[in-house]
Amino acid sequence: MTPPDPDYEARVRASFRRQRAMGFIGAEIIVVEPGLVEIALPYRPELTQQHGYFHGGIVSTIADSAGGYAAYTLFPADSSILTVEYKINLVAPAAGDRLIARGRVLKPGRTLTVCELEVAAVKEGVSKTCALGLQTLICLEGRPDTGEN
Amino acid sequence: MTPPDPDYEARVRASFRRQRAMGFIGAEIIVVEPGLVEIALPYRPELTQQHGYFHGGIVSTIADSAGGYAAYTLFPADSSILTVEYKINLVAPAAGDRLIARGRVLKPGRTLTVCELEVAAVKEGVSKTCALGLQTLICLEGRPDTGEN
Amino acid sequence: MTPPDPDYEARVRASFRRQRAMGFIGAEIIVVEPGLVEIALPYRPELTQQHGYFHGGIVSTIADSAGGYAAYTLFPADSSILTVEYKINLVAPAAGDRLIARGRVLKPGRTLTVCELEVAAVKEGVSKTCALGLQTLICLEGRPDTGEN
Amino acid sequence: MTPPDPDYEARVRASFRRQRAMGFIGAEIIVVEPGLVEIALPYRPELTQQHGYFHGGIVSTIADSAGGYAAYTLFPADSSILTVEYKINLVAPAAGDRLIARGRVLKPGRTLTVCELEVAAVKEGVSKTCALGLQTLICLEGRPDTGEN
Repeated sequence: MTPPDPDYEARVRASFRRQRAMGFIGAEIIVVEPGLVEIALPYRPELTQQHGYFHGGIVSTIADSAGGYAAYTLFPADSSILTVEYKINLVAPAAGDRLIARGRVLKPGRTLTVCELEVAAVKEGVSKTCALGLQTLICLEGRPDTGEN
Repeated sequence: MTPPDPDYEARVRASFRRQRAMGFIGAEIIVVEPGLVEIALPYRPELTQQHGYFHGGIVSTIADSAGGYAAYTLFPADSSILTVEYKINLVAPAAGDRLIARGRVLKPGRTLTVCELEVAAVKEGVSKTCALGLQTLICLEGRPDTGEN
Repeated sequence: MTPPDPDYEARVRASFRRQRAMGFIGAEIIVVEPGLVEIALPYRPELTQQHGYFHGGIVSTIADSAGGYAAYTLFPADSSILTVEYKINLVAPAAGDRLIARGRVLKPGRTLTVCELEVAAVKEGVSKTCALGLQTLICLEGRPDTGEN
Repeated sequence: MTPPDPDYEARVRASFRRQRAMGFIGAEIIVVEPGLVEIALPYRPELTQQHGYFHGGIVSTIADSAGGYAAYTLFPADSSILTVEYKINLVAPAAGDRLIARGRVLKPGRTLTVCELEVAAVKEGVSKTCALGLQTLICLEGRPDTGEN
C-alpha cells in the first residue's frame, strides 16, 4: 500500500491533534505507517465502567480513531474521512495499565475502505486482546480536513 | 417486558453512577423503563472530532451504555451485564447542543439479549438521528454488579 | 420517502427476477413499497442446517436481498446497487413453514443508504422474529442494472 | 488451540453433511483443523445475483458455516453450536470459478467464540478476497449435535 500523499504522516498527526476527544481522554498516536495506525491510552479511573475496567465505549473510541487514521494514511492530500460504520466485539475485560488500539487497512478503495480493529490491554508488560472489530470508512475527496469544514 | 427485579430502576441508576466514564464525559441517564433507557450528553468541545462534531467514539460510548442498561432493566437482581458486541452506523454528523442515546431491547433472553441503538443530535430543539446500531449483551447470573467484582 | 423513479416497482421486480439465487431457493418478492420490501421463502428441506431449521445463511440471503431492494426503490432509474456490508443477529431458530424477510430504509442517502432487516419464521400462522440486522448499501449512479454490467 | 475432543474432525464433517443447505448449493468442506475450517463452492448460475456474480447471501452462507465449524472444532464432543450474529463486508464482486470461505477462531471461549471470516473468489487460478467478516458463536454444552435436537 503506497500512500498517494507523501506527507501522509504529518497530515494524519495534524488531524489527530484536532480530535479534541483524543486529548481529553489522554490518547496518543504512537504509530503512523501506510495502512496502519496505533493509538495508546494510559489508564485513568475516569475512563472506567462499573467494574473498574476501561469502558467499552472508550475502547471503541480509540479503535475507531485508529482505523480511521489507518485508512486516512492512504487517502489523497485534499480529502476528509468519515467512519461509515463499525462492529466491535469486546472479547475480554479491558483491564490494564494502558490500551493499545491498532487499525489496519484490509481493503483500500477509492470511495470505501475496510479496516480491522484490535485493542490490547497491557498489564504489567503483558498484552492481551480485549476487542476485535471491522470498520468501513468513506473518503470525501476535494474536502481537505482543515478542521473548519 | 416485565422486569423480574422490581427494583430494576434503582439498580440500573446505581450501576450507571459507578461508570466513571459517564460522569467524566458529562452523560446523564434520563429514562429508565423496562427494556428502554435513554442517556443525554450535553455538548462540550472536549468531546469532538477534527470537524468540531461529537466524536463517533463518544456517540458510541453513550449508545453502548444505553443499550446495556436497557437490557439490564430486565435482568435478575443478582446479575451483572457485559456487552458482547455491537455494530453502529454513523449516519449523519453528530452536530448539536446535545445527544440523546436510546437503547431498546428487541429480543430479551436468559443468556443473550439484543438491543437496538439510536442516537439523536439535538440542535436548537430539532432532533436528528446521527447513529443507528444493533448490540448483543450477556447476562452473568449470580454475580451482582456491586462494582467490586 | 418519495422514489425519484416513478417506475421503481417494475425496476425492482425485474432486478429481483435476475437474481437467479432467489429463484433457486424459491424466494418470492411479495411487497415493494417506497423504502420497504418483503420477500417470502417457503420451507424446503434443502434449505436447512444440521437441526432441520432454515440455515442462517439462507435467512441472511433473503434479508440481504430485502434490504437491498428496499434501498433500490429510492434510487434513480439509471443506477445499480451493491451491499456494502450487513450485520445480522440470529435471535431464534428459523423454524416454520416459511420465512418473511423485511428490509426497511432507516436512512436514505445519495451515496449510502442504511436499512434495518428483520426475518420472521411463520409456523402454523404464528409469526416469530428469528433474525434482526442492519445493512449499508451503496448507489452506483449512471450504471443501470441491466444484468449485463 | 487444542481441541478437547480428539474426534473433532469426524464430528465436524458429520455435522456439515447434515446441513442440507450446503449440499444443495454444492459446497464442500475442504479443510478441518483446530480453529480453522475452509469451505469451497464451485460456480453455478443458480447461485448468482443480478449481475451474474455469486449472490452476497450465498457468499455469507458459506462464510457463516466456515466460521461456525472452525469454532465447533474446539467445542466438547457433547455440544451443539449456534451462530449468535455476524457482520460481513462484501468488498469486491464475487466473480470467479469458485469461492473459498475460511473461518478462523480469533478468541475461543467456554460460552462465546469469536471468528474472523474471509471469502476469496478464485478466477483462473487467481484468488481475490471478496468478503471479510467477524462472527460470534455460542456453545450449547450437553446438547450433542445429532441432527435430532
